[in-house]
Amino acid sequence: MRFYSDNTATTCPEILAAIAAANRGPAIPYGDDPWTQRLDAVLGALFGTTVRAFAVTTGTAANALALATLTPPYGAIFTQREAHIVTDECGAPGFFSGGAQLMLIDGEHGRLAPATVAAALAARPVDVHGVQPAALSLTQATELGTVYRPAEIAALASLAHGHGLKVHMDGARFANAVAFLDCHPGELSWRAGIDVLSFGATKNGALGAEAVVFFDTALVRDFELRRKRAGHLLSKARYVAAQLLAYVESGLWRRNAQRANALARQLGSVLGPSLLHPVEANEVFAQLGEERKGELRSAGFEFYDWGPQASGQARFVMSWDQPEGDVPALCAALARAR
Amino acid sequence: MRFYSDNTATTCPEILAAIAAANRGPAIPYGDDPWTQRLDAVLGALFGTTVRAFAVTTGTAANALALATLTPPYGAIFTQREAHIVTDECGAPGFFSGGAQLMLIDGEHGRLAPATVAAALAARPVDVHGVQPAALSLTQATELGTVYRPAEIAALASLAHGHGLKVHMDGARFANAVAFLDCHPGELSWRAGIDVLSFGATKNGALGAEAVVFFDTALVRDFELRRKRAGHLLSKARYVAAQLLAYVESGLWRRNAQRANALARQLGSVLGPSLLHPVEANEVFAQLGEERKGELRSAGFEFYDWGPQASGQARFVMSWDQPEGDVPALCAALARAR
Amino acid sequence: MRFYSDNTATTCPEILAAIAAANRGPAIPYGDDPWTQRLDAVLGALFGTTVRAFAVTTGTAANALALATLTPPYGAIFTQREAHIVTDECGAPGFFSGGAQLMLIDGEHGRLAPATVAAALAARPVDVHGVQPAALSLTQATELGTVYRPAEIAALASLAHGHGLKVHMDGARFANAVAFLDCHPGELSWRAGIDVLSFGATKNGALGAEAVVFFDTALVRDFELRRKRAGHLLSKARYVAAQLLAYVESGLWRRNAQRANALARQLGSVLGPSLLHPVEANEVFAQLGEERKGELRSAGFEFYDWGPQASGQARFVMSWDQPEGDVPALCAALARAR
Amino acid sequence: MRFYSDNTATTCPEILAAIAAANRGPAIPYGDDPWTQRLDAVLGALFGTTVRAFAVTTGTAANALALATLTPPYGAIFTQREAHIVTDECGAPGFFSGGAQLMLIDGEHGRLAPATVAAALAARPVDVHGVQPAALSLTQATELGTVYRPAEIAALASLAHGHGLKVHMDGARFANAVAFLDCHPGELSWRAGIDVLSFGATKNGALGAEAVVFFDTALVRDFELRRKRAGHLLSKARYVAAQLLAYVESGLWRRNAQRANALARQLGSVLGPSLLHPVEANEVFAQLGEERKGELRSAGFEFYDWGPQASGQARFVMSWDQPEGDVPALCAALARAR
Repeated sequence: MRFYSDNTATTCPEILAAIAAANRGPAIPYGDDPWTQRLDAVLGALFGTTVRAFAVTTGTAANALALATLTPPYGAIFTQREAHIVTDECGAPGFFSGGAQLMLIDGEHGRLAPATVAAALAARPVDVHGVQPAALSLTQATELGTVYRPAEIAALASLAHGHGLKVHMDGARFANAVAFLDCHPGELSWRAGIDVLSFGATKNGALGAEAVVFFDTALVRDFELRRKRAGHLLSKARYVAAQLLAYVESGLWRRNAQRANALARQLGSVLGPSLLHPVEANEVFAQLGEERKGELRSAGFEFYDWGPQASGQARFVMSWDQPEGDVPALCAALARAR
Repeated sequence: MRFYSDNTATTCPEILAAIAAANRGPAIPYGDDPWTQRLDAVLGALFGTTVRAFAVTTGTAANALALATLTPPYGAIFTQREAHIVTDECGAPGFFSGGAQLMLIDGEHGRLAPATVAAALAARPVDVHGVQPAALSLTQATELGTVYRPAEIAALASLAHGHGLKVHMDGARFANAVAFLDCHPGELSWRAGIDVLSFGATKNGALGAEAVVFFDTALVRDFELRRKRAGHLLSKARYVAAQLLAYVESGLWRRNAQRANALARQLGSVLGPSLLHPVEANEVFAQLGEERKGELRSAGFEFYDWGPQASGQARFVMSWDQPEGDVPALCAALARAR
Repeated sequence: MRFYSDNTATTCPEILAAIAAANRGPAIPYGDDPWTQRLDAVLGALFGTTVRAFAVTTGTAANALALATLTPPYGAIFTQREAHIVTDECGAPGFFSGGAQLMLIDGEHGRLAPATVAAALAARPVDVHGVQPAALSLTQATELGTVYRPAEIAALASLAHGHGLKVHMDGARFANAVAFLDCHPGELSWRAGIDVLSFGATKNGALGAEAVVFFDTALVRDFELRRKRAGHLLSKARYVAAQLLAYVESGLWRRNAQRANALARQLGSVLGPSLLHPVEANEVFAQLGEERKGELRSAGFEFYDWGPQASGQARFVMSWDQPEGDVPALCAALARAR
Repeated sequence: MRFYSDNTATTCPEILAAIAAANRGPAIPYGDDPWTQRLDAVLGALFGTTVRAFAVTTGTAANALALATLTPPYGAIFTQREAHIVTDECGAPGFFSGGAQLMLIDGEHGRLAPATVAAALAARPVDVHGVQPAALSLTQATELGTVYRPAEIAALASLAHGHGLKVHMDGARFANAVAFLDCHPGELSWRAGIDVLSFGATKNGALGAEAVVFFDTALVRDFELRRKRAGHLLSKARYVAAQLLAYVESGLWRRNAQRANALARQLGSVLGPSLLHPVEANEVFAQLGEERKGELRSAGFEFYDWGPQASGQARFVMSWDQPEGDVPALCAALARAR
């Protein structure tokens, strides 16, 4: 039974069906097809405002292209120390932006707080010698499975805007955050001040599709050109757009996230004090000890180590297609182990 | 009836079936899945040598990542003036390489000849003031629908290697070239001196899949890191690999190309002296005059203008799924028009 | 006697004296010194308009920083095929801009003509697939020692502006152009539509100083940050500014250029039909034949070959400090040779 | 009386004299002059080993070019949190390298310790998802005026080399470090494992000159090309080389540093417990309180605030040309203030 990552999951049948349904007759390539042409309207309806939405196939592309659009090459991108853009994208923000510098800020449970962001912004004068504060990037849900509340986002975005920064949200697990708060997606994005959102679908059931959603549409031409030259404008664009349309229009995005969240909650409920972070999305982090981890692995449970080497920490990620019996089995094994 | 581009085509049923077949159970992400793990062997068998093969989703990514691996930021990439990397990738080679300069060389019918390449290489001394000759990029089939013979490639590659350059082949329509010459794919690649090949599948029936095939495997670690940071390593990599495996193992790559080539030949045979370039792959370029083009369009034929504005040139591209009646109908209309 | 390049020249005594004069007491570094603070006013007075002027130490830095400010990473820079930025800056425009593509245009005697620039701009539609036309770069005087007239610049700049391009002038030998036309420097720059000028001093007597002069001042903050991160903001900036002030305020820029031009004219007058280009600035290009070049070299004259290998072409460059007897001696030797 | 920075200093008479002495007759440009040609030998003699040495005009250029030579675009550069390359070069390492990421490590008094570097290197596995550890950059003397001992450097370099990293030293104040330890410059560089040193002269008496000294000479061709395309190869290179030759051959580098260090020591000796860092080079950091700082400023002493806003910290930097009376006056004022 594997709890490695929601990336190990299959593609949702509804998504595959949408791809197959799009496979009828010729279509103008590079996004001038009827599927891609509907993205703005469908995403706009979802978020309850006017948007420009662009399909790409990976979260790294979505994040790095969005950030490059917001940040000059001499810009500074403020973000939480454990963010995916810091640790898992092989320097993509630096590459796409032409050298922008990541400014890492500590934050409990993967979240940033206004006070520490304000301190980072105040840490030195903005003069020609330093990189120029340009963007704040928040991750929702965070890399540690926690979720920002609307007011928290609004406070951070307001602070950032007050310093002239644009605000990006890495929403690879945005659906899980919405599902946890049971709120309107607009509350966690534009209404709270987000300028650009990487709205993930891949981890939550798509084959390979992420929407970059611009609430601030002034910069979209720049984005389109950056996407093209980065090789992220697919010729047969309809198949990526079709995934996103099915994901949004069928409500799949919310259902899949709800199920994965529920499984995580179930697991979290038996872990008690060994939990390292509140379980709010579809990830569970626990201090189990190396011995107990070994026992679980011997019993056939697959999951990643977390934290420093031999720290005894483990991460369990629930996928949209996690078999029903997996979590009960893991809970039972945890009860046995130790 | 549309002859815009092979990019307007649908995805082959066999490719879709392979994607669906890969949609079973969890798989380790980012290429550690069984499908991706077979790419080296399957592509190696196809080419008849040891290769390292990497899947990406676009031709621009394949070309630019390959070139960035071959070329330092201060490098010069020699290529034919009308090559796709020059005109249709929004400067991707410059972006991925960190500023390498394209050196454009004239060449008849989209092809380079050793004499002009030699002249370009000799045009100035290699000193610290100029960009450093680093790579030669050939397009096979060319942007003008013509095909290099093995000996032509060998002569160009040998010249390039003699000057210390690596040789890249943009094979977005490589299958069409092999189909035209009815040869072994090795003859047009490593046996003729190609170091890295962008082996296209998307235009020829895939949903979105290209293989970057390294015959010179020394640089693959650099490639892998560049691919990751460019956002071109898909988390659910199995679905791209599965496309390539089906494309190669079923012989689809050759069959689809043969059909499209045959349709182009059929069209070319009625165009006589108005043909602008030999019809060797799946593209037909003709001097029709603006009036005749207008008549064809009124009759429902869709195709792109070519050449300078109002030059009367037209491009017709045959797709793997071109309906049977399209070409006869176009031939008839051409007979009527004028 | 050497005619290699005006780069082989010494530094003018007036310039050295200005450096020494600036060597009094402490000065705030990085351009907040009294010398640098006067650059805008002194250059503004020279050009007869409001400018923002920035000192750097090399022509490559001046050109590449200016172009990077005018051009997005996916931009196209149109320029004459033999321009210094194409052949002698090791790809600096691509590096500083993050990958912009140089678009090379033919032009007689090193000059561009509106017709060929218009053709280049019209060569293909501006869509997301191609690099975006962003800047036109003119060299004045050109790499072949010729000079654009004000009306020629105005025609080119107007054409460029009409297509949304900014216009840069590489004025490494701008003083020589002004001296040749005996005009006001404003006529060859902002009045003719130049947006940014690299105003050279190094080749014409400075130790190492070039001014980047912005007539369009909207982009100067971007320029300042790019200059800093490129390592081209000197801490002891006063010594570069002092060179430029002495160069401009003493009239040195014009006097030195006049002398070098006159020497070139003198040499040109004896070369008759072997002249390859009109002698308008301080460079002379001649078709001498390899034999005659050998004779001159045996007689102690130093100069560079030009053109393709063994083409018999030679380049002679006059420096501001060329000894009086050099040109008569060379003229005599030319009369003897053959 | 100003204690802002050693950048506010004048140029040493000996350096100006050397520039004037180099101002005789023509010289081949771009480094093929007799002054530049002697750099390797003169710097090699100074360090007691074979070196390749290159002149540039700024510390930012020296550091960023050196680091770009050591680091691929997807590389990670480990350095102390307060290093100049982090805070004061406007992202130059990211620009020159094409996006390398700075990995900031805490360290007391501006120095790194092996344990924290080891922890940073062990913090996560080296896989394709993260930037690749490529270089360690040490600052000597540090930004906080402290000095690494030879054994400390050796321990750090050995650790770095053991992980496959190259080791760079930012020696903008290297002379001050050597003067403090009264040791051989080789002991603080190649003998301790440094691969490339930015050997500063500008802050210590030059007009604008830094030597990039390669002890590991394998990468120098890459460096030369990067320098050229960055606009840091001066045409009249002799004037930068002449500065470095005078700086080294006359012993100026050591004498100037000794004097500035002695002045700092003198000031440090009266500050007692308010000293924030050991005074080992030419900088003094003190916790004075905002009130006392105000009193000093009213009395005509100029210096920079340090640390967070209103933290009461001050930085005093001694220049090679600091007037004799400055430090006694400051000491007296400090005794009065409070």
